[in-house]
Amino acid sequence: MTDLPARMTAIGISSPGGPEVLRPEERPVPTPGSGEILVKVAAAGVNRPDVVQRKGFYPPPPGASDIPGLEICGTVVARGPDATRFAPGDRVMALVSGGGYAEYCVAHESHALAVPETLSDAEAAAIPETLFTVWHNVFERGGLKAGETLLVHGGSSGIGTMAIQLAKAFGARVIVTAGSDDKCAACVRLGADVAVNYRTQDFVAETKAATAGAGVEVILDMVGGDYIDRNYEAAAVDGRIVQIAFQGPSKATVDFRRIMLKRLHHTGSTLRSRSVADKAAIVAAAGEAVLPLLAAGRVRPVMDTSFPLAQAPAAHARMESSAHIGKIVLLV
Amino acid sequence: MTDLPARMTAIGISSPGGPEVLRPEERPVPTPGSGEILVKVAAAGVNRPDVVQRKGFYPPPPGASDIPGLEICGTVVARGPDATRFAPGDRVMALVSGGGYAEYCVAHESHALAVPETLSDAEAAAIPETLFTVWHNVFERGGLKAGETLLVHGGSSGIGTMAIQLAKAFGARVIVTAGSDDKCAACVRLGADVAVNYRTQDFVAETKAATAGAGVEVILDMVGGDYIDRNYEAAAVDGRIVQIAFQGPSKATVDFRRIMLKRLHHTGSTLRSRSVADKAAIVAAAGEAVLPLLAAGRVRPVMDTSFPLAQAPAAHARMESSAHIGKIVLLV
Repeated sequence: MTDLPARMTAIGISSPGGPEVLRPEERPVPTPGSGEILVKVAAAGVNRPDVVQRKGFYPPPPGASDIPGLEICGTVVARGPDATRFAPGDRVMALVSGGGYAEYCVAHESHALAVPETLSDAEAAAIPETLFTVWHNVFERGGLKAGETLLVHGGSSGIGTMAIQLAKAFGARVIVTAGSDDKCAACVRLGADVAVNYRTQDFVAETKAATAGAGVEVILDMVGGDYIDRNYEAAAVDGRIVQIAFQGPSKATVDFRRIMLKRLHHTGSTLRSRSVADKAAIVAAAGEAVLPLLAAGRVRPVMDTSFPLAQAPAAHARMESSAHIGKIVLLV
Repeated sequence: MTDLPARMTAIGISSPGGPEVLRPEERPVPTPGSGEILVKVAAAGVNRPDVVQRKGFYPPPPGASDIPGLEICGTVVARGPDATRFAPGDRVMALVSGGGYAEYCVAHESHALAVPETLSDAEAAAIPETLFTVWHNVFERGGLKAGETLLVHGGSSGIGTMAIQLAKAFGARVIVTAGSDDKCAACVRLGADVAVNYRTQDFVAETKAATAGAGVEVILDMVGGDYIDRNYEAAAVDGRIVQIAFQGPSKATVDFRRIMLKRLHHTGSTLRSRSVADKAAIVAAAGEAVLPLLAAGRVRPVMDTSFPLAQAPAAHARMESSAHIGKIVLLV
């Protein structure tokens, strides 16, 4: 620990605004607290909430770093009190409450997993947010089972591409929506059984057609708006709709009769706001179920582009263009 | 079985309309099918869906009688093939798919329970719909546990009064809404911890005040409309909102952000549309849990008024007046 520098480079948000407000700053290297590890960051995943935070609409929760970045891959360089799971030198991928866009970042040891050797730093940094989000919302909250059908909106996103692979790996059918024929083709290559181009096709009609009129058992939605009423229509009896984001306003006018007549379940969650213990439980369950699939190469993060840390503005611009397929990562 | 008449008196719906369209008619005595029992009806419960059916908005499901009436108490007088649970002479209360407003009615044996001796015919006829609806929606679907708080809209209705008693019997706290101070007082006498007069008080504010700001774990809603958005506000983190009816339009404009941020579950169900097997499972579970409480007098249906069968129009008029507290029953 004595050879750790006192200062580091991190990407700060100079003021709320466009990608250009992301600027390299010198910051103190953080100190790991109880149960925490200090990680020398090799790569950091870029996520939608980072963009929203940059715009000033998603303040970090109390106690979290103001530096953006919710997932990292790197090497453990120090441990706080009571941190016993990893040793200095271990390669980990971790969910963090902020601070990922930096040379060093603190993570709770229960929010980290050992990285399978088959994964690059960039790939490992691209995993935590999507893996834990998909695991919790599709399998724990949505209760997707083998033989059921999952509808994923935004199939070519980081979340979407992870959802396709995990659902297929666990024996479900997958229908996705995406915004171009290229994105649809990428989803099908990943294993999606049906890909719907939402610009030219109606996902409710396509979903009904692909399920002999029955609808789908689980829907993972990150769109909201008029999709909510259409999700209720596309869902099967006893269907579960899980809301993990909104692309537009979160208010919508919906006919709730279907909730009652089809006995639907509409639920949702955010990962960042969960307690340390809640996150630890999700990480442990997802790790146990999915690490073997990652090690065997049966599930692999879909990588869009990697940018050097200093080019964080370009990474955000790419995410906001919605041209990407899969994950955008910063290399430190 | 040889002494059964071929014809009986039943209340038909002469044409969609007001209470006056309910008229005595002569009908054939129904024949019990496989697994069914024929019951000589002593009393039949009156429910909101009967009123909606009378108005022409709720056609009976395929295969069901066009005679209204969804619950009965009476004596078994005949059994269909494979019906073995009850013997002629047994006193039963049963959920039926229609046909309750009649001298004889068919029920599936798995949808019937033996009547505890402590209950009158009118009381027993008042139990099936409310017991099975509350059991399934509050306990099975809503997952109410001891120590949690239940908010029941329409606390003085048949459903509401059963929900209050069952929730209290199983160790939960209960908040109700009702439309007058008299109805609120009736709910408190039944065990409700807090009663909110929705004409003069805001149930969201009162619910928050009664739960130290945390909100309630389970909400049983039969109102809909603007209550849906307010239910989302009144619910606790991980709260479950169960929709069992709508008093007005089922379309509503709602801010769904709370579904995600509070990880709510919005679900619902209707009893009548369930399969024979689904209903049998609900009846069996509710019977096992609640028959001992009914036999011991710890749970007792709240009775509003009993009318002779021929006065079905007066019974409907009373239900539509919303002046009633508890159940309205027809005596045959």
